Amino acid sequence: MATGTAAASASGVGADSLESGAMLLRRRHAGGLAGAGDDDGVGNAEEVAASVEQAFADEPVPSWREQLTVRAFVVGFILAVLFSVIVMKLNLTTGVIPSLNVSASLLGYFLVRLWTKAIESVGLLKHPFTRQENTVIQTCVVSAYGLAFSGGFGSYLFGMSRTIAIQATEANDAQNIKDPQLGWMIGFMFLVSFVGLFVLVPLRKVMIVDYKLTYPSGTATAYLINGFHTPQGAERAKKQVRTLGKYFSLSFLWAFFQWFYTAGDDCGFASFPTLGLEAYKNKFYFDFSATYVGVGMICPYIVNVSLLLGGIISWGLMWPLISTKKGSWYPESLPDSSLHGLNGYKVFITIAVILGDGLYNFLKVFGHTIGALISMYWKKHANRLPVSDNMTPPATVETESFDDKRRIELFVKDQIPKTVALGGYVVLAATSIGCLPLIIPQIKWYQIFVAYIFAPILAFCNAYGSGLTDWSLASTYGKLAIFVIGAWAGASHGGVLVGLAACGVMMSIVGTASDLMQDFKTGYLTLASPRSMFISQVIGTAIGCVTAPCVFWLFYKSFDIGASGGAYPAPYAIMYRNMSILGVDGLSLLPKNCLTLCYIFFAVSFTINLIKDLVPKKVAKFIPIPMAAAIPFYLGPYFAIDMFLGSVILFFWEWKNKAEADSFGPAVASGLMCGDGLWALPQAVLSLANVKPPICMKFLSRSLNAKVDTFLGN
Amino acid sequence: MATGTAAASASGVGADSLESGAMLLRRRHAGGLAGAGDDDGVGNAEEVAASVEQAFADEPVPSWREQLTVRAFVVGFILAVLFSVIVMKLNLTTGVIPSLNVSASLLGYFLVRLWTKAIESVGLLKHPFTRQENTVIQTCVVSAYGLAFSGGFGSYLFGMSRTIAIQATEANDAQNIKDPQLGWMIGFMFLVSFVGLFVLVPLRKVMIVDYKLTYPSGTATAYLINGFHTPQGAERAKKQVRTLGKYFSLSFLWAFFQWFYTAGDDCGFASFPTLGLEAYKNKFYFDFSATYVGVGMICPYIVNVSLLLGGIISWGLMWPLISTKKGSWYPESLPDSSLHGLNGYKVFITIAVILGDGLYNFLKVFGHTIGALISMYWKKHANRLPVSDNMTPPATVETESFDDKRRIELFVKDQIPKTVALGGYVVLAATSIGCLPLIIPQIKWYQIFVAYIFAPILAFCNAYGSGLTDWSLASTYGKLAIFVIGAWAGASHGGVLVGLAACGVMMSIVGTASDLMQDFKTGYLTLASPRSMFISQVIGTAIGCVTAPCVFWLFYKSFDIGASGGAYPAPYAIMYRNMSILGVDGLSLLPKNCLTLCYIFFAVSFTINLIKDLVPKKVAKFIPIPMAAAIPFYLGPYFAIDMFLGSVILFFWEWKNKAEADSFGPAVASGLMCGDGLWALPQAVLSLANVKPPICMKFLSRSLNAKVDTFLGN
Repeated sequence: MATGTAAASASGVGADSLESGAMLLRRRHAGGLAGAGDDDGVGNAEEVAASVEQAFADEPVPSWREQLTVRAFVVGFILAVLFSVIVMKLNLTTGVIPSLNVSASLLGYFLVRLWTKAIESVGLLKHPFTRQENTVIQTCVVSAYGLAFSGGFGSYLFGMSRTIAIQATEANDAQNIKDPQLGWMIGFMFLVSFVGLFVLVPLRKVMIVDYKLTYPSGTATAYLINGFHTPQGAERAKKQVRTLGKYFSLSFLWAFFQWFYTAGDDCGFASFPTLGLEAYKNKFYFDFSATYVGVGMICPYIVNVSLLLGGIISWGLMWPLISTKKGSWYPESLPDSSLHGLNGYKVFITIAVILGDGLYNFLKVFGHTIGALISMYWKKHANRLPVSDNMTPPATVETESFDDKRRIELFVKDQIPKTVALGGYVVLAATSIGCLPLIIPQIKWYQIFVAYIFAPILAFCNAYGSGLTDWSLASTYGKLAIFVIGAWAGASHGGVLVGLAACGVMMSIVGTASDLMQDFKTGYLTLASPRSMFISQVIGTAIGCVTAPCVFWLFYKSFDIGASGGAYPAPYAIMYRNMSILGVDGLSLLPKNCLTLCYIFFAVSFTINLIKDLVPKKVAKFIPIPMAAAIPFYLGPYFAIDMFLGSVILFFWEWKNKAEADSFGPAVASGLMCGDGLWALPQAVLSLANVKPPICMKFLSRSLNAKVDTFLGN
Repeated sequence: MATGTAAASASGVGADSLESGAMLLRRRHAGGLAGAGDDDGVGNAEEVAASVEQAFADEPVPSWREQLTVRAFVVGFILAVLFSVIVMKLNLTTGVIPSLNVSASLLGYFLVRLWTKAIESVGLLKHPFTRQENTVIQTCVVSAYGLAFSGGFGSYLFGMSRTIAIQATEANDAQNIKDPQLGWMIGFMFLVSFVGLFVLVPLRKVMIVDYKLTYPSGTATAYLINGFHTPQGAERAKKQVRTLGKYFSLSFLWAFFQWFYTAGDDCGFASFPTLGLEAYKNKFYFDFSATYVGVGMICPYIVNVSLLLGGIISWGLMWPLISTKKGSWYPESLPDSSLHGLNGYKVFITIAVILGDGLYNFLKVFGHTIGALISMYWKKHANRLPVSDNMTPPATVETESFDDKRRIELFVKDQIPKTVALGGYVVLAATSIGCLPLIIPQIKWYQIFVAYIFAPILAFCNAYGSGLTDWSLASTYGKLAIFVIGAWAGASHGGVLVGLAACGVMMSIVGTASDLMQDFKTGYLTLASPRSMFISQVIGTAIGCVTAPCVFWLFYKSFDIGASGGAYPAPYAIMYRNMSILGVDGLSLLPKNCLTLCYIFFAVSFTINLIKDLVPKKVAKFIPIPMAAAIPFYLGPYFAIDMFLGSVILFFWEWKNKAEADSFGPAVASGLMCGDGLWALPQAVLSLANVKPPICMKFLSRSLNAKVDTFLGN
């Protein structure tokens, strides 16, 4: 469940992160929602925390069994489907996926409130809606829709398909192709998704109670949920839900309206040359997507600015310049999609930036982790000598407040036996080792075995790192697996496919482990039982293993997924496949000068990250994020323009009324995203039923229009 | 200056009125702006009035010369051009013209404030901005832009042109055609527009001080202006101006944006089949016109509902039904525009409704007037017998308040000598009689002479009637002139042209007379001198006589004015011409069954009006207005949909926050209208400079799109 992690990750500095190429942030807004409204929300959240548990002191904490209610899982299932559709759409269009936790919280809260109100009016309400139950829903939903992302439907899994293989031009023999089928995808999901749940369970108490790791996203979610259940918070939540509902409807209706005008290619608002026809040819246009305006409102300004800047550098400067070298750098006769032509520059330069950014952050987070562990070891060692085992350092004394006592008490009450955890890991890993080769024969059992040997260590590193920095490196570990295990298998043995499959195995374990830990932190802060959290994650994962492939299948059957330049280009599928090809085949594939450019961009990406960390925070926040800048390299800047518009709207809103923007901005953004995203569902159904839109809104230049008019006149 | 009157007219019941076919209202919103916010605004305004003059008691009233400042006329000129463009656009697109007085007030206030602030900061401000000066500006602007309407550029004057004559099919010989030329149009304007100013000046005191006629529009304007000059009112005016400015810019930019996509016929947002292609064929679509959304926000709900209802009845039912009779009721071979075909039904049924409505209202207002005059005569007579000349009835005692005393004192101070008034009328009428035949040789001097003999009586009736009901019947008197004088001249002597010219002569006098009286009422209530009001009207009229033809000329040279189905169909030009043809040639022109339908619609129109007046007000306000329902008969309901949307927006706004909607609704509406309207100016300039929009946004059915794609693929 790397997605859950993904959705929960945001950098310490600029809140950027690559999760299979997704830009993600949640802390800022979640923090804002929780009442702080500051960019450095977590610190504030901690301050607000001071009296949380005293406010809830009168309310009894339900037992872990009572926390797991039927209604929670029904609501969880409904939201899992909704968010799977939305995430899948984002996945397959641009790969930019913002955190949907706030939306999930608001909608979850809203649905259960609706439920309890309805039951209450009939006089049958037995259990009030508690924050523990709310946490259970949240955990379940995030786990479930997380799989829509980490299942690799927009990256490694779909990268195996023929559609993508043909575009990648190299290594598209039958050995290296596996087309999506509902059956094996569900099987694959079940095999790889559960292992990660068990791997770090025994270290739960160490990380949260002893190490007191921050887990900023988990903390923010907890404060959000705690906020909902105070009277004042409930009032605000109600208003937020209403705002969300309004923009949800508007956005849905707008998407519905747009649909009517899309009878044909390049028809409709998504092809609107808002900035003129010349700009449109270079993908500079606003495509009227409410989703990405919403995404832009949730992402930090610097992310949106970076995206736009990246778009201008690539589609405004580099590609036009490189295309003048046509015939000299690359053959003229190639089709547009060929990786030996202009498209090669786009794909490989993007990969170079992704890898440069990934390497830097890997080194940074890994270094942090190791450093922190070493210093802790020395501290403990030093402490142990003069006093005794029981010494409590001053910091602990300070924080051993009422809240902490109560939280620790409840957190250690419901244990998950170590035997269950270890046994579960061994059994699941063995099943996975045994069964995965049945699905993908190219991957050998010993390759998976090796992956599962190293996985716990990497999972620990990731969980610890994300506890410190809120930054999950799951996709980086996944890429590591692509290169290592892909190369090991070799091209002749389907190495490309093996690499992609190994990526899935690794990303799942590593991602899920840190994800679960974030949830435990949330549970710790809302007094939810670790046991109920764990069970909720298991159920959520099971839901996700079925819904995510089904939703993908719906998209796959209804739309032209993976078509370069289409509505669903699935950009990261081709990125991942090409990484795998690189790992197996080396660099022979690249057109002239492409490798040089790649080296430059790799270095630039690494260096900018380094500079961002070295300069003071005040300056750093104005330095663009290389990873974000790279996303439009392949896709074009159109969605960056949508997102930038979202930024502009939020900026003016904050300028006019900061408090209101902080409270309702995320609700508006969520509404815009969810409404537009949900339209994909009826749209897919219409497409499957062969109901086609009736009108084409076409954009022609004046001269072309004159020709068409003459043609139509005849 | 019938337009001024037109802009100032609104019915007592439903606030509908036909002024050369324009739907007009101002009272409700002006009232709302003045602080009352009630549909029956005037009553409230009167209540508010109680203490007005005491609030202003400390402020000296400038002499009439001081009221006429240079800045007032500079601002007046700027606004005259702006509003002439807007009115001309409305004129030539649908003929629905809302009252722009509120916009004019707000913008006038804003511009002078800007001016005085600028001068003040340099330390050169000699005279503060008084409400008297404000009234002078208002009067000047309304007089000037009024001519853009009453000059008949969308009705009688343009009805003389070849463009319209060809569409009317009958009587299109050279005798009955006079194409627009800048020279003769300005001459014509000067000849007919000033006479009306002098005709009722001597009766000023009688009507306003003695008869105490209400003149609701003039009163509302006065309260608006008085409101601006109290501190609280100034604060609100500032906010309103800001709102107006915001929507002005948005609307202008939106119109600008739209322009880029109109490279060709049926291109752009104005051809957007928002409700589907089938609905579009029957002119049911939203055409994204900010102007008409704004107009819809200003017009009362019942007007917009009537428009939409009329559109549904005509284009949704009648025309499709009648077109099934093609080949039986009318020949199949006719072009679409022929009046012997379907178009004939559209035009003549519209005329039937207009005439039915006009006749009813003429009878009603005329009856009121006569009734009121008779009862007053008897009262006076009865009073004179027992007491003496000086008897003051209780009502007068009650209202002879501080306000009244002060107002009367200032109102009678500056006299306009009777000799000036009578002499002016005689001289101007003589000039007109002498010179008009030089411009239009078909009209004989004795025909104009007869018109000027009857004019003062009709002008008095109209001024009295509009004082009672706020309803100017100028266009009805104009139509009377069409029929009477046109028939007198006869077809062989260019009777069609004579009728149209006579219409202009009559409308101008009758309209201007009531208009001036409204202004006197405004002046009375703001302590502006009658003399300065009169001079301001003269100057405003002179400005209008030049700007209105020039603005029309700009439109005429830049766009395809009068083309049926185009962007500027000038619907009332063809209506007026056909009325004139009817008057001269009789009913021989009409296709089969058309006359029967006309009789039915004439009767229905008359009867609905009667029912509206007979049933209680509570019910009457839900009965549609026939005149409004007839407007889309010829044009199609697309602009009714725009206006209905405006209604819906206002309705929800009022529902959410009535006070805010009342205060800022008119400002938003004015902004929308003015911004979009003003774009016509640069658009015309671009068109004259032969700068063409670059892109066509085209709407094709799916099958047609497939064909076009195949064609373009080759």
